[in-house]
Amino acid sequence: MNDLPRTAGPIFNQDSTEFFYTHSADEMSGETVDAYIDRLKKAGVATFVSCGNAQRANYASEVWESDWHGYDSEGPDDQPVLKHALKEQIKPFRRRLDSAKRLSEMGVDFHERALARCRHHGMGAWMTMRMNDVHGCMELDSPLLSTFYKEQRAAKQLRNTHRDTSWADRSLDWERPEVQEHYFKFVCEQLSRYDMDGLELDWMRFGYHFRPGRELAGGHVITAWMRRMKKECERAAERLGHPVKLGVRVPSRPETARMLGMDGVAWAKEGLVDVVAPSPFWATCEFDIPMQEWGRLLEGTSVELVGCLEIRYQPIPYGPATMMTPELAAGAALSVLHGGADQVYLFNYFPSMHGLTDNWGAETIDSIFHAMKDASALEKLSRRHAITYRDVRAPGEPLDNALPATDLQNDMPSPSGCALRINTGPKPVDRMVELLLEFDPERADPASSKVYVNSIECGLKGAVIDGVARYAVPCDQLENESQVIDIIGGEAKAFTIVRAEISIAPTD
Amino acid sequence: MNDLPRTAGPIFNQDSTEFFYTHSADEMSGETVDAYIDRLKKAGVATFVSCGNAQRANYASEVWESDWHGYDSEGPDDQPVLKHALKEQIKPFRRRLDSAKRLSEMGVDFHERALARCRHHGMGAWMTMRMNDVHGCMELDSPLLSTFYKEQRAAKQLRNTHRDTSWADRSLDWERPEVQEHYFKFVCEQLSRYDMDGLELDWMRFGYHFRPGRELAGGHVITAWMRRMKKECERAAERLGHPVKLGVRVPSRPETARMLGMDGVAWAKEGLVDVVAPSPFWATCEFDIPMQEWGRLLEGTSVELVGCLEIRYQPIPYGPATMMTPELAAGAALSVLHGGADQVYLFNYFPSMHGLTDNWGAETIDSIFHAMKDASALEKLSRRHAITYRDVRAPGEPLDNALPATDLQNDMPSPSGCALRINTGPKPVDRMVELLLEFDPERADPASSKVYVNSIECGLKGAVIDGVARYAVPCDQLENESQVIDIIGGEAKAFTIVRAEISIAPTD
Repeated sequence: MNDLPRTAGPIFNQDSTEFFYTHSADEMSGETVDAYIDRLKKAGVATFVSCGNAQRANYASEVWESDWHGYDSEGPDDQPVLKHALKEQIKPFRRRLDSAKRLSEMGVDFHERALARCRHHGMGAWMTMRMNDVHGCMELDSPLLSTFYKEQRAAKQLRNTHRDTSWADRSLDWERPEVQEHYFKFVCEQLSRYDMDGLELDWMRFGYHFRPGRELAGGHVITAWMRRMKKECERAAERLGHPVKLGVRVPSRPETARMLGMDGVAWAKEGLVDVVAPSPFWATCEFDIPMQEWGRLLEGTSVELVGCLEIRYQPIPYGPATMMTPELAAGAALSVLHGGADQVYLFNYFPSMHGLTDNWGAETIDSIFHAMKDASALEKLSRRHAITYRDVRAPGEPLDNALPATDLQNDMPSPSGCALRINTGPKPVDRMVELLLEFDPERADPASSKVYVNSIECGLKGAVIDGVARYAVPCDQLENESQVIDIIGGEAKAFTIVRAEISIAPTD
Repeated sequence: MNDLPRTAGPIFNQDSTEFFYTHSADEMSGETVDAYIDRLKKAGVATFVSCGNAQRANYASEVWESDWHGYDSEGPDDQPVLKHALKEQIKPFRRRLDSAKRLSEMGVDFHERALARCRHHGMGAWMTMRMNDVHGCMELDSPLLSTFYKEQRAAKQLRNTHRDTSWADRSLDWERPEVQEHYFKFVCEQLSRYDMDGLELDWMRFGYHFRPGRELAGGHVITAWMRRMKKECERAAERLGHPVKLGVRVPSRPETARMLGMDGVAWAKEGLVDVVAPSPFWATCEFDIPMQEWGRLLEGTSVELVGCLEIRYQPIPYGPATMMTPELAAGAALSVLHGGADQVYLFNYFPSMHGLTDNWGAETIDSIFHAMKDASALEKLSRRHAITYRDVRAPGEPLDNALPATDLQNDMPSPSGCALRINTGPKPVDRMVELLLEFDPERADPASSKVYVNSIECGLKGAVIDGVARYAVPCDQLENESQVIDIIGGEAKAFTIVRAEISIAPTD
């Protein structure tokens, strides 16, 4: 057991582009960086995690190309680094590069300034590094791509050269020593340059690091690399006079993580990491990260377990998606804390990008983020729990999305049946509880089906509109942790359920 | 940590009917029981687990009805206990009842005799109890049903009265105190009646013990019941002068087990159990029980972990099935041992029923069972590893069968792709290795697809017959534990794979 101070939550991941996308070059100054952190402080963010890279550095690195490498602020829109960009990309792109470049030229290092401001506010101050970012990889010459990456690609050394049809095929291959060294030198620079409470290695950007079938062997390569990294953190801690924790983002399921070479449990048991964050990739927030299982697997270690929320809500792979609402975020956060997470971790929850301020409003951001500090605060809010799917699987792991669900999809091993499970965190007391089931309107009518929650029949509430049916659920029939919804179709025509949510009203 | 003697393997589960089905009343004698055990001893069985019940006892119990309760050996075929049986059931049924009754009337208790013979041979001697057997429950008045069960049914107290279309709906509800007491008194009888090395509680017969949605709460009920049981085992140990271990069969996935109220990990951590056997139900042997994950979850306990093999091989739910071949059994057994199981556990591997002697031959039974003692012996044999599915899921857990697999089933989260994973145990050295893929012949031709094992392209070997394609796999490209097969279709017409196996030739 170590005796490191605990990491405070919620933890907020700031990506490497948002600040520069959402602020113009003219707005650049140290004070603007301060104001950005002040906004997060006001919202209740307790630990800030600052991201310095995708394939390039967003600061003036001495060991990696910077984002504005080869870019001429005064040059035309068809200069070499921009000529392959789509027309509509050029303006925001230039804005980001102009801003990052300008701040650097003013002698302000975003991360140095942001972390210092965090200390000023008593917030945790972390760096995070994306370990295999492939934004832009489907374009031949995106300015997001590094020279190093393009060299690996030219040498046909990317992850899956025999398929090569998607971004997952085009990741760097972490079995290659030059890839390991490329990242090692960049981490070392950050550890010697910044005063940080912790360094996160973000293995979930983008999560595929080895040739298909080489993941288990590759996992040992990453583990060996992590041992080197741990030593560098210790060296930095000595220099700084305070601990520098090591954190990781890994896939949401422990076995998937292991089978993809990101064996968070093994790293924890070996004492290589201090914080483990099971995470979805991007397509959807995951409402059933198995926190209980993670907690059991990490028993006997002093590792902090945090549950990561994404910003999208997509019940069905490739199906319709929205951004998370405040109620959904409260539900997902409460569920991970109730499942045993030490903290909630927010990924892609930017006040400005993805429309959070527009959609939620500033005050709602503040109240939700503040409540994410602990379960008892969240528990008082209006919350909504849903069914989505996990968007990262190891090659060969079967699909396991719960939706769409039909009564032709046999749920029980032998007989037919259709049941759904929704994680809801702690059992609510004396609340209005409503189940929402969205039926595919082309198929059977909801009114012909019977719906049971934990074996208690629940009646339809009001009219069914566009297939959306609502049911009153007696609060005292709810269980701790999760509810089982059993649907029995009443007609020959099969039903299909495409969305399922349980909403719990706030305390009075 | 306890210091109990380790349980020897392979462990052999003898069900409550096989002996009496396969031996006539005229053959009944203590010596016949001895000969039965002698046969298993010769085969290499190291621990014998004797089953005394389904819904009734197969011995002259003083606390439960016996199988022959209400049966008149001299009576006609339409006597009350037989009148609801199908015509073709009556003869084997009567044979079983006649035999069990006769043995009992001769003053021979099958279990007492069998366990004594095990001790004579130095074999482990266990009892197992089926905790919720529902054989015959779809018939109104099967002679397999107990009076107790029929009373629960009449009172509408079974598991799922709102659906009631399958056996899973018709289990007893273990939240009911009378159910708990019904089983408690039966276990106590066995603990005071027999001299056993261990008692197994078989929660996998049939695996659904609570109303849908009540499983997590119900799990606490079972755990409390297990605490009482542990005390009874300790009392028996005192009486017998040697330890009486407590074992459990639970679902193959740890989280499924927990969500069905059979929380093997919690029982292990609380010190309630000595042996945990993750098990499929019946439909198919499971080739990817996550033994590594079980091992990690049980770390820090002294619990023995055993991997359970079933006798059927069914790649696709509701698809064609065969019995396991010796090569498949060797493959499955090696895979669980390599994954960290202490022993192999055989369920439904009877020499006589299910045709094992007819299909395998007596000598093959002996050589395969003997080899199951340890991985190094198995590793020398011809073996075959396959893809099946898990046949027990908690209500609301999504389907996750890997087969059938098509190139329309998007494997990666974002792009298309079709990959399969086959667990193969230890990496073989210098062996002939072959991949078999069975394509649905109605769809795309295998010759138009490219097949990769761990990213290495493998060539078709010989002609494709009825969709079955064989590929030569370079042995040195195999990985430890599992292999990833990546299939890329070459034509607009999609392929569908319905069976996937890797065979590894024996050592010379």
